[in-house]
Amino acid sequence: MEANLLTMLQREDSNGVATLRMQRPLQFNALSEALLDALQHEIDAIAADPAIRCVVLAGAGKAFCAGHDLREMRSHPQLDCYRQLFLRCSRLMQSIQALPVPVIARVHGVATAAGCQLVASCDLAIAAETARFAVSGINVGLFCATPAVALSRNISPKRAFDMLVTGRFIDAATAADWGLINETVAEEELDAAVARKVSEIVAKSPAAVRYGKSMFYRQRQLALDEAYDYASEVMARNMMEQDAGEGIDAFLGKRQPVWAF
Amino acid sequence: MEANLLTMLQREDSNGVATLRMQRPLQFNALSEALLDALQHEIDAIAADPAIRCVVLAGAGKAFCAGHDLREMRSHPQLDCYRQLFLRCSRLMQSIQALPVPVIARVHGVATAAGCQLVASCDLAIAAETARFAVSGINVGLFCATPAVALSRNISPKRAFDMLVTGRFIDAATAADWGLINETVAEEELDAAVARKVSEIVAKSPAAVRYGKSMFYRQRQLALDEAYDYASEVMARNMMEQDAGEGIDAFLGKRQPVWAF
Amino acid sequence: MEANLLTMLQREDSNGVATLRMQRPLQFNALSEALLDALQHEIDAIAADPAIRCVVLAGAGKAFCAGHDLREMRSHPQLDCYRQLFLRCSRLMQSIQALPVPVIARVHGVATAAGCQLVASCDLAIAAETARFAVSGINVGLFCATPAVALSRNISPKRAFDMLVTGRFIDAATAADWGLINETVAEEELDAAVARKVSEIVAKSPAAVRYGKSMFYRQRQLALDEAYDYASEVMARNMMEQDAGEGIDAFLGKRQPVWAF
Repeated sequence: MEANLLTMLQREDSNGVATLRMQRPLQFNALSEALLDALQHEIDAIAADPAIRCVVLAGAGKAFCAGHDLREMRSHPQLDCYRQLFLRCSRLMQSIQALPVPVIARVHGVATAAGCQLVASCDLAIAAETARFAVSGINVGLFCATPAVALSRNISPKRAFDMLVTGRFIDAATAADWGLINETVAEEELDAAVARKVSEIVAKSPAAVRYGKSMFYRQRQLALDEAYDYASEVMARNMMEQDAGEGIDAFLGKRQPVWAF
Repeated sequence: MEANLLTMLQREDSNGVATLRMQRPLQFNALSEALLDALQHEIDAIAADPAIRCVVLAGAGKAFCAGHDLREMRSHPQLDCYRQLFLRCSRLMQSIQALPVPVIARVHGVATAAGCQLVASCDLAIAAETARFAVSGINVGLFCATPAVALSRNISPKRAFDMLVTGRFIDAATAADWGLINETVAEEELDAAVARKVSEIVAKSPAAVRYGKSMFYRQRQLALDEAYDYASEVMARNMMEQDAGEGIDAFLGKRQPVWAF
Repeated sequence: MEANLLTMLQREDSNGVATLRMQRPLQFNALSEALLDALQHEIDAIAADPAIRCVVLAGAGKAFCAGHDLREMRSHPQLDCYRQLFLRCSRLMQSIQALPVPVIARVHGVATAAGCQLVASCDLAIAAETARFAVSGINVGLFCATPAVALSRNISPKRAFDMLVTGRFIDAATAADWGLINETVAEEELDAAVARKVSEIVAKSPAAVRYGKSMFYRQRQLALDEAYDYASEVMARNMMEQDAGEGIDAFLGKRQPVWAF
């Protein structure tokens, strides 16, 4: 991977947890094509790495992420370039959901447009109580169409439409109340809160978490009977894993389980 | 259009905003066949009118809308008449969503049965804090089936089912908490709050708003990957519009954008 | 039906209301294969019994239901056995929804894993304010895949995923806030609150309630236009019932309706 991509996106691994930190602080971590590529590259690498158990997505500087890089977008005003850009960004968002391990958004400052979509696309999100969220493309004449896909699968339609058509900011408490994020904490406690959630997740059976994440999003798109057939098969296979036997035996024996890795 | 329809539904246009006011105050704006026709007629006219940027739907008198006209319904008790009536009403609700511009429900008094469905079918809803909502057909032996379609796409299933099976009223604060409406205000501030929301919307690029509304509802019905492909295409086309270029240039140049009309 | 099943699941009918009480208090009403069968048997019997108007699902002892019987599951560790078990449980959950009359979960103590799924699968749920909810399979190395199907159709995705991946408990107030249950009351008022809801439901036209419940879940899985076509047909047929005529005439005549039974 090229040096400029590595500086743009920092990855730190520690005890099976990969932290991806977007590093364009002067541009509020705007998703330039290079940053999109760097994110895709790391997400793909993590997808293939059985040692990673959980991912944290964070931003350096004053903001989580301010969406696409508008200056760069204006520099090649061709329909096909825009198509490729939005498809590339959409692929990234779907790759986050397709990743077999949970991804937690660590949100501070602003998360706007595709930045807000990143939050919506992560499995879990913890935000500083000072964080603010908007899908503000409408303010520059560009309706946040791809962010709407993720947003409208997280919050109720009237709230999503209001955000999309007015571009207004909501605060972290409102985002938590609406279900866009899981939790808000004081800014100085943000890292500790994310670390607590990570600890909870990595204490679980890695196999069970992997069974769970992939089935969770897939079953949502199925009709009820199909979803149940699929989930039954997944759960039966999960039961055949060593960890499920160990976990249940430990529970019945009132001892701590020891997971296979 | 005939005179009686015009008196039954008042339309006032002002600066690109069409206000439709249901005018059957003595019947709490019950949706007679004539009023349904008048609404459909105006919605169709607005759909074809590029000058209209936003619609407000309101009711004259003490209520927003009390649903179907029960007396009229009982006057021709034939299955085929009822089929035609509910299909006609369903077409109206879908036409509101298919309209390329946002529709705001201005709700006061009661919104019951198909009146509550009207609120659910609008893109945005602002209500007086004294407003109340119910899908109360069950009280007269008629389950609100078509209202359930709109309601269950706005609020969570247990809340929707409770309202449908008990016919109970919820107050405006509860409706806002559940996501059925966007906002509640004191009754005397209702017009001002609606006007503020309208102002926010008409200050945006008309092209961008039109791209957005049509894609918003369509993408919700697609699988995630199809939704992203579709939204990427819409967003790329929106980027090729003059307004998006102007909006981004204005943002980068720290000046106000001037939209094409 | 065998005696041991009857003792495991108590059914009491009173004035058209069937109360099913799970009776394995020492196992926190864990869903053994026998209890699953007993529940399926009674749900099927109720489905065929036009005299039953409403069902209450409750648990004896300290808990509502603690999910599958882990000891029993471990006793025959074959993939095919697990498949059959989860399909059987999934069939029960779908049978609750397919029942033509409303089912109210009366929740006290804990509702965990498939017990939480039972709550999510009922049409309505009323809980003691001391009740707690979790999908805690992940703690024993088994992701709650089939419970996720029901849970994710009741609450927003980030909240559902958080519960599933951490196994954490939420209290009754949170469950009500998120829409997993309808209402919380003091523990000593739980039976009275359930009885009030039952009274509200059995006061309605039985025909209208039956039209409503079956259409409610079916239409949710359809595209908007198909949902409206279907709901229009259901509502037109409901209008042709004697009860709808009686209900509307009573309303217009300002008298109480008398329903056909």
